[in-house]
Amino acid sequence: MKELLLNPVACHFAGRLWLQGPDDRFMGIGRLELLEKIGALGSISKAAQAMGMSYKKAWDLVNSMNAQVTTPLVSTQTGGSHGGGAVLTPAGQQVLEAFGAVQVRFQEFMRQETERLLG
Amino acid sequence: MKELLLNPVACHFAGRLWLQGPDDRFMGIGRLELLEKIGALGSISKAAQAMGMSYKKAWDLVNSMNAQVTTPLVSTQTGGSHGGGAVLTPAGQQVLEAFGAVQVRFQEFMRQETERLLG
Repeated sequence: MKELLLNPVACHFAGRLWLQGPDDRFMGIGRLELLEKIGALGSISKAAQAMGMSYKKAWDLVNSMNAQVTTPLVSTQTGGSHGGGAVLTPAGQQVLEAFGAVQVRFQEFMRQETERLLG
Repeated sequence: MKELLLNPVACHFAGRLWLQGPDDRFMGIGRLELLEKIGALGSISKAAQAMGMSYKKAWDLVNSMNAQVTTPLVSTQTGGSHGGGAVLTPAGQQVLEAFGAVQVRFQEFMRQETERLLG
């Protein structure tokens, strides 16, 4: 395969991986990054801003995630629609760690496949 | 994680994987299916039709793939723009097999990650 490609050194596997639930996606790289940013910034609106995402979109994602679990991943505090803070719950932290590890293994899978095909 | 999800049995990892070249995607699941159909049907227009894809889109994908390799993957025969047949070259067959195997390993990776998280 290496000899077939004009520029094999510039080629690599890329991809996307997500956990699909019965009705909706549960967790993918965007949702994972959103959880990470909420944990770091303590606010859904700040997390949305940091990702260049609308506040509505971020809320929709949080609601979609929270609707698929037995314990919310993100807990919001009172203080008006944009005013209150948000924190990752222990369940949210658990999801962040578990799916972060999946993404690391996926990166490693892609690295190995690139090496196998073109190394 | 299993106990956290409302409906873990209905959840599974899904994803997309492609070989990214320096300027364009080289090979992904859609391009792979197109090569397969061209090989089976002997025609780019029939392959496009079978995939519900426009003839132009199919040609653009074939041109993109052929432009990134030292030997064309698809060889077209004369007979007018829609009239001539198309065949997979040995290089095209080689790509089909190699990337088909990558996709099988990717499916297996996703199955294992689903099992690891929710099994």
